[in-house]
Amino acid sequence: MKSHTEYLWFNTKRRHEYIRITDRVQAACSKCGIEEGMVLVSAMHITAGVFVNDNESGILTDIAHLLEGLAPTGPDYLHHRTGEKNGDAHLKSILVHHQVIVPVTKGRLDLGPWQEIFYAEFDGQREKRVIIKVLGE
Amino acid sequence: MKSHTEYLWFNTKRRHEYIRITDRVQAACSKCGIEEGMVLVSAMHITAGVFVNDNESGILTDIAHLLEGLAPTGPDYLHHRTGEKNGDAHLKSILVHHQVIVPVTKGRLDLGPWQEIFYAEFDGQREKRVIIKVLGE
Amino acid sequence: MKSHTEYLWFNTKRRHEYIRITDRVQAACSKCGIEEGMVLVSAMHITAGVFVNDNESGILTDIAHLLEGLAPTGPDYLHHRTGEKNGDAHLKSILVHHQVIVPVTKGRLDLGPWQEIFYAEFDGQREKRVIIKVLGE
Repeated sequence: MKSHTEYLWFNTKRRHEYIRITDRVQAACSKCGIEEGMVLVSAMHITAGVFVNDNESGILTDIAHLLEGLAPTGPDYLHHRTGEKNGDAHLKSILVHHQVIVPVTKGRLDLGPWQEIFYAEFDGQREKRVIIKVLGE
Repeated sequence: MKSHTEYLWFNTKRRHEYIRITDRVQAACSKCGIEEGMVLVSAMHITAGVFVNDNESGILTDIAHLLEGLAPTGPDYLHHRTGEKNGDAHLKSILVHHQVIVPVTKGRLDLGPWQEIFYAEFDGQREKRVIIKVLGE
Repeated sequence: MKSHTEYLWFNTKRRHEYIRITDRVQAACSKCGIEEGMVLVSAMHITAGVFVNDNESGILTDIAHLLEGLAPTGPDYLHHRTGEKNGDAHLKSILVHHQVIVPVTKGRLDLGPWQEIFYAEFDGQREKRVIIKVLGE
């Protein structure tokens, strides 16, 4: 069994932003020479997520609108009693989920034709991390 | 380490439909002789999901109602500017999540008594795929 | 490849309760001596979840409020025609997701600074189980 671990760093310009990372995940797989296995792509913060969907700007904005509707920025969350102001970002992370597993077959991410991997930043403008962990042989 | 990959194809009669696939996932595990490991069951489309819940028709309809309430069919999503009409299906996929990992213990899917695996089609009536990837020994 | 399987049992005092289990997941990893790999932490019931977020009481209550808003206790879900009264708990499990995968690096759960693992009970006051499955080497 082989394993390989990498960390991606992000510091987004906007507070809420989605960044396509498919190529960086593929690069991590290629680097370690795993042919058959799985890659875990997981946010290391509780105000961010990782998801797989379409690299089309309209649907990405639709996803942002959905999340903003369900967990709006600003309201007086109980979490804000600690002095934080990012309660919405925690809830968005819960709804989107903070991780995906991508299958690797014959050395390639085994994604469907329109599947792309995105890092979802819900409380950015500071240094944040994603772990990529490859397991296989 | 052993690995095994299979693809399930679906072409549902209705646009929105849930299909129990527990037996097909178990069959994939049995075929490759893995005793201890994990199975990834992951939709290869961005308008479908995979979930684990109860094989009871009432709750399955309740799940459909929940998703329809949160991401209704039809509204003028920004994604529709591309000519697509399935914005709701993308959002439902995000909410349900497009994959599960099932543990394998002593050669069997290690599920609780009521846990069943479902493929969730949100934009069907065409050929779509799920990957099953087994890793273990 | 090494693997290790453990089951955690819960019997919560309240119907809806979140329990931090990070230390118990770390203990399972340490026990089996895996240095590099992944741990699956997965509820074995369809009315419970597992999530990663902040161990701060305000945000945990905010998460409970979000879920109660989206899938309220009590309404006449179709599932209740079977005699059950826990339709809301099934839907909350779908929204939160019933599992996480935690990466293991150099023998430790490779979590970000504020990430903690929680068992989310949505229909407790009875015996329920979570599986911990470690895979690696």
